[in-house]
Amino acid sequence: MNKLSSSYKELLERLSGGDRLALARLMTLIESRPPEVYALMSQVCKLARAVPRLGITGPPGAGKSTLVDQIIRSFRACGKTVGAIVIDPSSPFSGGAVLGDRVRMQDHSLDPGVFVRSLASRGSHGGVSRATMEVSVLLDAFGMDEIIIETVGVGQTELDIMGIADTTAVVLVPESGDTIQTLKAGILEIGQVFVVNKADREGADRIASEIQSMLKIAPSPDGWEVPVVLCQAREGEGINEFLSAVENHRRHLEARPDLAARQAEFRKQQLIEILLTEIRHRLLASSSLGSQASSLEPGLAQVFDLVRDAEKDPYQAAAELLADPKKLAKILGIK
Amino acid sequence: MNKLSSSYKELLERLSGGDRLALARLMTLIESRPPEVYALMSQVCKLARAVPRLGITGPPGAGKSTLVDQIIRSFRACGKTVGAIVIDPSSPFSGGAVLGDRVRMQDHSLDPGVFVRSLASRGSHGGVSRATMEVSVLLDAFGMDEIIIETVGVGQTELDIMGIADTTAVVLVPESGDTIQTLKAGILEIGQVFVVNKADREGADRIASEIQSMLKIAPSPDGWEVPVVLCQAREGEGINEFLSAVENHRRHLEARPDLAARQAEFRKQQLIEILLTEIRHRLLASSSLGSQASSLEPGLAQVFDLVRDAEKDPYQAAAELLADPKKLAKILGIK
Repeated sequence: MNKLSSSYKELLERLSGGDRLALARLMTLIESRPPEVYALMSQVCKLARAVPRLGITGPPGAGKSTLVDQIIRSFRACGKTVGAIVIDPSSPFSGGAVLGDRVRMQDHSLDPGVFVRSLASRGSHGGVSRATMEVSVLLDAFGMDEIIIETVGVGQTELDIMGIADTTAVVLVPESGDTIQTLKAGILEIGQVFVVNKADREGADRIASEIQSMLKIAPSPDGWEVPVVLCQAREGEGINEFLSAVENHRRHLEARPDLAARQAEFRKQQLIEILLTEIRHRLLASSSLGSQASSLEPGLAQVFDLVRDAEKDPYQAAAELLADPKKLAKILGIK
Repeated sequence: MNKLSSSYKELLERLSGGDRLALARLMTLIESRPPEVYALMSQVCKLARAVPRLGITGPPGAGKSTLVDQIIRSFRACGKTVGAIVIDPSSPFSGGAVLGDRVRMQDHSLDPGVFVRSLASRGSHGGVSRATMEVSVLLDAFGMDEIIIETVGVGQTELDIMGIADTTAVVLVPESGDTIQTLKAGILEIGQVFVVNKADREGADRIASEIQSMLKIAPSPDGWEVPVVLCQAREGEGINEFLSAVENHRRHLEARPDLAARQAEFRKQQLIEILLTEIRHRLLASSSLGSQASSLEPGLAQVFDLVRDAEKDPYQAAAELLADPKKLAKILGIK
């Protein structure tokens, strides 16, 4: 493992000393994947204390940002510091959020007890999970008491935050559609807490009781009774009920006999994700080298060229590479 | 590459002969990843004719299934055969769709010109993309004239279908929320066609014109003018307009000077995905072997055990593995 230069060591010291600039700097640094990323993250892991992660997910327009804003206010009122990660399923073209949103979040930008970080999800498989994991470890190491992860949607990303968040809340609104549609989205088993936001609107009680009856049919496999909380996040109503539901779930988790086993499994999963991220990068690097590139043997670069030119189908090429240990090792940047 | 046994060869012959049972059998077979998967898919690729893929995405409750049902009817009325892939962001626990949905789709189950396949998205990174790609190649090889891919959500999954679908339609409803929320979900640049479904409801014209004005601010980078179509899928209204918008986009794509380059890039991407899927499987296999397993050297299995037991953080372990070509090759199942 690369030794850390003194400038990195200084950054880490400033991080553990509560320096927000060092925190921001480290987030940017780690996203750029320098060769020192492993040594750096390894030190950051040592500083982290495994504070609980609260995931907030749901369809667009459900009022997740408003809810997160109110949760931050509540935590702050209790004297807790908060780190928030906001995952923007941004454009794969522009590589950033379409609009500068998060307007409300900026209320907290002058509060030294709050740090909000936006992450673009782009199109990369697993890339967001890894970035979210690393930013949350950084916020943990920085000393935040609470970490909130907000993500839009009902697809892959939310399933992913389940692995990172200890408690995931699914936010819906009365307009979220017939329950059958909600179920179709498979979000029922994602949430440990359900929030019906904008509960002053027509149909709030109906959707809440529909979720409740569905939860009775498909109860949580670990015995947790998933609560459904009515909120009006904009008015701050229902926030206390929501936070006590989260607190109850945390106590439930701590009482579970398999807590240690789950944490152990999560750490192994982290290792696999880190290795796969590295290998994906190496594969992309190998494939983008043309046959003229000197760093790949001609016979190897040719494989990608043949597939590109449709002279070989990708499955045949994959089979040939997988059958040849030397070629495979080379393409994966081993040795 | 493994030689294909006569039973596989027979299946392929039956596939190209239009045998639906062989098609279903091959889909199930390929999902179980037998050692012959590469040889099998390679042959399937040879049968495929690259028919266009139409992606349908949007939030739950937008009426995507109803729209897909109507699109299938229209295609059938023109004498075209249709393969449809429905991606269910199903529970990561039960590993299948929560409810037996797709009720309407069953109208087509007796039609020999239609084949519908459900895929569970589960929590696996990229797993759905690979499965969707393979099932679509199978439907193509089977001889379907049109392939439709339906997926719920506004997150990772939809960005992924962009790579597989030639044309992606985003389905919204008047209740899909303020445009700012829609933009926040970053779906603006996902769609080559926008559909405002349930257009008889209040606010349909408003959301349509809001999307249109946003599209003017952020026009499609390739010069395609993204149309916004009003539909009432349940009544079959607007379906013809929608399909002619899709047809126009296909013509636009064919006229693009970089068509060949994009297809070449897609094939290379396929190869990378196939290799990564295999490597992920191998890594998971290595990590699940305890130190008692004889197939991994004690020193190697120990790495996973140390991480599991929190005696080594995952970054340090990753760095050590990446720095040791022999260990890395072993863990990736090379040689």
